[in-house]
Amino acid sequence: MKRIYVLPVFLFFLVSFNKIEKYTTFNARESIAVVATSQDPLPSWNDGPLKKDIIAYVKKVTTKGSPDFIPVENRIATFDNDGTLWAEKPYVQELFAFFLVKKMVEANPALVQQQPFKAVVEKDKAFFENGGEKALIELLAATHTGMSEDEFEASVKEFFGAAKYPSKNVTLKQIRYQPQLELLNYLRANGFTTYIVTGGTIEVVRAISEGFYGIPKNQVVGTSFKYTFDDASNSIKREAALDHLNDKEGKPVGIQLHIGQRPVFACGNEGGAGDIAMLKYSQGNKYPSFQLLVNHDDAVREYSYQEKDNLSLNAAAQNKWHVISIKDDWKKVFADK
Amino acid sequence: MKRIYVLPVFLFFLVSFNKIEKYTTFNARESIAVVATSQDPLPSWNDGPLKKDIIAYVKKVTTKGSPDFIPVENRIATFDNDGTLWAEKPYVQELFAFFLVKKMVEANPALVQQQPFKAVVEKDKAFFENGGEKALIELLAATHTGMSEDEFEASVKEFFGAAKYPSKNVTLKQIRYQPQLELLNYLRANGFTTYIVTGGTIEVVRAISEGFYGIPKNQVVGTSFKYTFDDASNSIKREAALDHLNDKEGKPVGIQLHIGQRPVFACGNEGGAGDIAMLKYSQGNKYPSFQLLVNHDDAVREYSYQEKDNLSLNAAAQNKWHVISIKDDWKKVFADK
Repeated sequence: MKRIYVLPVFLFFLVSFNKIEKYTTFNARESIAVVATSQDPLPSWNDGPLKKDIIAYVKKVTTKGSPDFIPVENRIATFDNDGTLWAEKPYVQELFAFFLVKKMVEANPALVQQQPFKAVVEKDKAFFENGGEKALIELLAATHTGMSEDEFEASVKEFFGAAKYPSKNVTLKQIRYQPQLELLNYLRANGFTTYIVTGGTIEVVRAISEGFYGIPKNQVVGTSFKYTFDDASNSIKREAALDHLNDKEGKPVGIQLHIGQRPVFACGNEGGAGDIAMLKYSQGNKYPSFQLLVNHDDAVREYSYQEKDNLSLNAAAQNKWHVISIKDDWKKVFADK
Repeated sequence: MKRIYVLPVFLFFLVSFNKIEKYTTFNARESIAVVATSQDPLPSWNDGPLKKDIIAYVKKVTTKGSPDFIPVENRIATFDNDGTLWAEKPYVQELFAFFLVKKMVEANPALVQQQPFKAVVEKDKAFFENGGEKALIELLAATHTGMSEDEFEASVKEFFGAAKYPSKNVTLKQIRYQPQLELLNYLRANGFTTYIVTGGTIEVVRAISEGFYGIPKNQVVGTSFKYTFDDASNSIKREAALDHLNDKEGKPVGIQLHIGQRPVFACGNEGGAGDIAMLKYSQGNKYPSFQLLVNHDDAVREYSYQEKDNLSLNAAAQNKWHVISIKDDWKKVFADK
C-alpha cells in the first residue's frame, strides 16, 4: 500500500463480506523443502533474462569461497506488500477501513449522522474530495484508533475471514502473486530471512503474514500508531496518533528500527513511488545486492497502470534495478487458493 | 539497564579499554543440539523447586494434546538484558558512554572546555548531581546522537572489542550469566523464540546479541532514537531526540511494536523496577505463562543489592512470579569465556 490515507470511497459499495471462512495455513517449511529439491525453484516465472539473473545472484552470494559470498545473518530480503506480494487495485487496507465503518454503523446507527461515517454511508465523494487529507485521516483515526490492540486484532481477524476482493470476486488469499510466493520460498531455502516492509498498518499485515506468506509477525515492518500500556486493564491501547508512516523515506527508517541492517535483496513495485527509497537503501549495502520492481503492465490477467510522473521506473532505469514485467515475466499471476 | 540516563560519572575512571580483541561467535545451533540431547538441560542450575518448575512448565506447554499446549508461533520468550542476562554493576551502556566521551575528547581536545565533557573529564560529580536528568540527557545526546547509524555502529563495535568490565576485570562476554545462556538454549530447543527486551539502546545490544546470546538483531527490542533517511548520503541519520524509552511501561509498548504479541515466558530482574510491566503483561496471556525475576542476593560471587522500595520483589510475591536467588539457585554464575 502506498498511501494509507488515500481511500477512494466509492469502493465501499463494491466490497462483499461473506461469513467467516477459515483460511488454511501456509506451511513454509514444507514449501521450502519442495523448492530446495526441485529442478526449477521458480516454475511460475517465464524462462528469460530476469529469472536467470535472480538465480545467478542467489547462487553467487551463497557459494562458499566466492568473493560475493554473504554470511547467512546478512541475507536480509525485504518485500513491499501491496502491488508487490498481492494486488492493490483496490488496496486491501481500504477494504478494511470500509469494513470497520460498516461494523461501527451497524453497532451504533447514530453514527450515520456524524462525519466521516455519514459521508461514507451516503456515498458523499465530495466530502472526501473537498476535505482532502484531513478528512481521510479523520476516517482512519475514527476506525483504527482509540481501542485496545486486542480489540483491533479481533476486527482484523474478522475482516480477513469474511472479505472478498471486489474486482476479482475471490478470497484475499487468491490475490497473492504465485511467482512471488515461489521467490520468497526460494530465498528462504537459500538462507535469506524474508521481511514484509509495508505502508499498511503493521498489525493488519501481521494478521496474515504467516498464513499467507510464511513470514512470522516479527518480520513485518509497517505503519504504526502510538501505543501506551494501560496498567489497570493490563493491555496496550492504540492512541489516535500516527507514530510512524512506513512509506517512501519512512521505509529505510522502519528497516533500521525493526531489522537493524540494510537488506541485500529488496523488491517493491511501480505505482506510488513508495519503494524507491527502500531499493536505493538496499543498493547502498556493502555486499552485492539485488533490486527488483514489479511493473503492472498486464491489463488482461491483472491491471495496467503507472505513475503519472513515472518516478519508480525512471529510478529503476537510472540505478539499473531489475524490473518485473507481469505480462512477460510471469507465466501465472495469482495463487490458486 | 534500568534507566539509560542515570550515569554515575565516577565509574569513568574505573574503566579500562584494551586493544580490540576478536570475540568468538556463539554457535546457537550447536548449543541447541547439545541441550536437546543432554540429560540435564540446565546444568548450572541447582536442583531445586525453581529448576523443576521451569522444566515442568516447558514440558507441559510443548506436549501435543495437552490442554496447556502452546503452538510454536506463540512460544514467545522475552528477557531483560542488564541484571538479567549479564551483570549491571556498572551498566555496560554507561561504560559505553564514557568510552565515547574519551574518544571524542581525544579527537577534539577543545571539547574539554565544554559541558558535559568538562564535567566527565574533571570528575565533577556535582555537575551531574545538580543538573539532574537534564545534564545526563545532555551527555547522552552529545555522545549518542547527531551521527549516521553506520558511524554509531562502528563505535559500538570498537567498544565491544576493547572494553573490560571494571569490577571483575574480565571481557564483557564473561559477565554473561551461564545459567541464563542454558535457559535461552533450553527454550529455543523447545520451539520458543527468544527476545531481548532492554532499556539499553537497541543498536548497542544488537551489536552483540547474536555472538553473545545467539539472538539475531531483529529479536532485540530496545530504546531507540529518532531516525531519518538522508537521501543524499543514502544513509540513516540519528537525530538528537529519543523516540522510544524501552523501560517500565515502555517495555510492553516495545513488545507490541517489534513482536506483535504477548510473551508467554518473561524474565526480568530486581534492581530498578524496570521489568514489572513486562512480567505483568506476559501474565495477561491467554496461554499458560511463566514469569521469572532475578534477585541479586549473592555478595560473594556477584553483587548484593535491592530496590529501596522493594517494588519488584513485592510485585513478584503478589503475582506469584518465580524468583531466582542467585545465591541458592545458580550453581555457577558467570560464563567461562
